[in-house]
Amino acid sequence: MMNKRRGLLVVFSGPSGSGKGTVLKEAMKKCENLQLSVSVTTRAPREGEVDGVDYIFYSQEQFKELVSQNGFLEWACFCENYYGTPRARIEALLSEGKDVVLEIEVQGAMKIREKCPDAVLIFNLPPSMEELKNRLEGRNTDAPEVIAKRLETAVWEISQAKKYDYVLVNDTVDNAANTLLAVIEGEKCNINRNEKLLAEYK
Amino acid sequence: MMNKRRGLLVVFSGPSGSGKGTVLKEAMKKCENLQLSVSVTTRAPREGEVDGVDYIFYSQEQFKELVSQNGFLEWACFCENYYGTPRARIEALLSEGKDVVLEIEVQGAMKIREKCPDAVLIFNLPPSMEELKNRLEGRNTDAPEVIAKRLETAVWEISQAKKYDYVLVNDTVDNAANTLLAVIEGEKCNINRNEKLLAEYK
Repeated sequence: MMNKRRGLLVVFSGPSGSGKGTVLKEAMKKCENLQLSVSVTTRAPREGEVDGVDYIFYSQEQFKELVSQNGFLEWACFCENYYGTPRARIEALLSEGKDVVLEIEVQGAMKIREKCPDAVLIFNLPPSMEELKNRLEGRNTDAPEVIAKRLETAVWEISQAKKYDYVLVNDTVDNAANTLLAVIEGEKCNINRNEKLLAEYK
Repeated sequence: MMNKRRGLLVVFSGPSGSGKGTVLKEAMKKCENLQLSVSVTTRAPREGEVDGVDYIFYSQEQFKELVSQNGFLEWACFCENYYGTPRARIEALLSEGKDVVLEIEVQGAMKIREKCPDAVLIFNLPPSMEELKNRLEGRNTDAPEVIAKRLETAVWEISQAKKYDYVLVNDTVDNAANTLLAVIEGEKCNINRNEKLLAEYK
């Protein structure tokens, strides 16, 4: 008999405007075994953000305390705010057999790759660069320089997609969510993840 | 704009009694993009077998002619009968974007791996060795020595599963068919199959 199988640690990245958050939400609606890891941050909550849902909001002192306890899988500082992926909850979920998704940017993903070689890294692409530009411009809330900067960042991020294990195109949210779930399901069948299973057939 | 994407060449193997034929049929019912490659054989049709559906039935002369034209992806001789995987139809289907499954045994699969490094190799496992034994014995149509021999072959075949890319467990036909389709869908997102796609984002 098989023991309860450990879940898969999934890193999901993509440029701003690629719609990765929406794809993830849709995928989680379709598959309750998929759980999002909530990041810890020291930045102030924005309007509508809920503690424990959007982020776990920590003081700088709390954050540094958890760093000193080796409590983060990875952490970084952007614009004087700290962001981190807390280890304990992820470990608990994986042990229960849940698949845990980290929605993090490229540098964070590479740190996870190093620390957790078992993680599967998936990159979410917009349908095209033109479409990405339209989406970023369509937000209207940002100044042209901000949009230009974001597009530049997106170009760099997409150039890093080759370091990921899988790439998917967010043409429609439904398609992309189904594809994401297929990638996760398929990866669990990867021969390199099934040595124990094969050993049961002797 | 993307060109029509080439389909995936899928090799699906598993021991006698693992139910791979049933899984394949169910998967093809769920996904019309999946097509089975029909093998060519020189053996006589069994009752109920339809030419062009179960096998393409060739005379020895026809078979040797196609061999001499390099018309097989792989071929072999068992019990004085020839069996082969004809190349032309597979090539046509792949060009149309269809995913083509070859249901072949381990040695044939290894030949395909050599000739078509792009092929994805998937191994179908029974739920357990006990269950496989039950299934082989339950057929009742074969003598105990034949069953014992088949079980021995199955043990050897399963020992070769580690040479495949993916392994799945046929616990229920529906699960296994869904998993097979997920593996195929997921594998299309493999970063190594998407260089052209990424090149479009420059």
